Amino acid sequence: MTHTLINKILRPPHLNIILIGSGNVATQLGIAFKNAQCNIIQVYSKQKSTSSKLAKLLKCKSTNNIKSINLSADIYIIAINDDAIKDVAKQLKLKDKIIAHTSGSIDMIALKSTSSNIGIFYPLQTISKSKTIDFSKTPVCIEANNNTTLAILNSLAKKISNNIYVLSSNQRKQIHLAAVFACNFTNHLYIIAEKILQKNKLPLSILYPLIEETAIQIQKQSPTLLQTGPAKRGDKKVMQQHLQQLGVDKELKQLYQLISKQIAENTSK
Amino acid sequence: MTHTLINKILRPPHLNIILIGSGNVATQLGIAFKNAQCNIIQVYSKQKSTSSKLAKLLKCKSTNNIKSINLSADIYIIAINDDAIKDVAKQLKLKDKIIAHTSGSIDMIALKSTSSNIGIFYPLQTISKSKTIDFSKTPVCIEANNNTTLAILNSLAKKISNNIYVLSSNQRKQIHLAAVFACNFTNHLYIIAEKILQKNKLPLSILYPLIEETAIQIQKQSPTLLQTGPAKRGDKKVMQQHLQQLGVDKELKQLYQLISKQIAENTSK
Repeated sequence: MTHTLINKILRPPHLNIILIGSGNVATQLGIAFKNAQCNIIQVYSKQKSTSSKLAKLLKCKSTNNIKSINLSADIYIIAINDDAIKDVAKQLKLKDKIIAHTSGSIDMIALKSTSSNIGIFYPLQTISKSKTIDFSKTPVCIEANNNTTLAILNSLAKKISNNIYVLSSNQRKQIHLAAVFACNFTNHLYIIAEKILQKNKLPLSILYPLIEETAIQIQKQSPTLLQTGPAKRGDKKVMQQHLQQLGVDKELKQLYQLISKQIAENTSK
Repeated sequence: MTHTLINKILRPPHLNIILIGSGNVATQLGIAFKNAQCNIIQVYSKQKSTSSKLAKLLKCKSTNNIKSINLSADIYIIAINDDAIKDVAKQLKLKDKIIAHTSGSIDMIALKSTSSNIGIFYPLQTISKSKTIDFSKTPVCIEANNNTTLAILNSLAKKISNNIYVLSSNQRKQIHLAAVFACNFTNHLYIIAEKILQKNKLPLSILYPLIEETAIQIQKQSPTLLQTGPAKRGDKKVMQQHLQQLGVDKELKQLYQLISKQIAENTSK
């Protein structure tokens, strides 16, 4: 398969792609592939309504029957819930067709029963269905079980992004963990800030410049050098006052104390 | 005093300002006032080297003797450590000159022994000495003990910012608490992410697009609607794997579990 496939990448006609999944990642990747003139020939999802909706958007066929998945495509991108990847992969027999999943935390070997050419195509971004992602800056982390598959996934990634990383499954898992802290947990802190402000009839927008600056300035200096605030200064009076302000919310107080303690410990190191 | 002062604001010559302090906030405000053609006539700091350095930058006089502070300025901006504000204010007798401090967490009444016209001039931004701040977008939170003082502080704020909020001391304290979560604690999460990546010889830069997107998208939708990740999905397998990855670091594990629990609770509400 490989020679024909490399020719396809180097010359039109383009790769034929099948998307397995119709959620946030499948939708946004589908749009990006389409915009990059890739040939998406089919969308599969167990939910008929969402697969046909995405297929309509991408102007391709759809199916909600796993046995009706077209077996003659070049690349299968499996963008579904982590828990479902192994099960769906088991039901697919693709021989030597390339299949790659998009998860940050699942091992590549979850796909080993499906094909002899397996890989990862993990876009490192927070992706919702409604907001179109600018993939050109989004890191795409790829991995494969052989060099030819890696080269082909690299070519596919290059069609949508300028920011490609070849990583092992372990490195990808570490990045995923770091991303949970830097994105999911950070968003939780934004939620807390919004709640504190809402209680006092103040809009979150008053914090937008501060939040933006905090996120941007770490691109110029390590966050270790940028820490400020009462915990960093060891300002016990202010911290005591903040705990009082948090009132009866024990869990918020616990979070305030735990992070403040860690900041103080980092400072004294 | 008020009539003359209002005339000064409406017509040149401009307000005469004295900066008390020579740290990050005093430096950046001084630069912003200078750029806005304000007359800074003196800088005071107990440390001779820093006061003269800032005075040189702002092309004005300096003193490190509190008794040598010029008593004929129009506005005194006191930008020093929270703990020192009350003590320094006690040593100043300014009659009816306007004095305002720049702290997020200290009551306005800390200045009551100094003058009959007191206020707050709190720029809501993370401010370091080395990086020049774009104050035009920075919220400046003002407060005063009378309307004339408030109008004059408002005029001064308008010279550097388009984003002015008139707030009570209580509202300002709540904003300061929210800012600790959204800026200081968020920066701590960035530090954790960087450490996880460094251990695996990966650069923090791989997360820049994700961090930026997370901070920017809350300007379009409430962070409550934007939460993603394993805790939100209730993906116990991934969370268990993450705890294993964190290894022997008990405090990090505790933080991971606490925030994940809070995200899950928010989700189920």
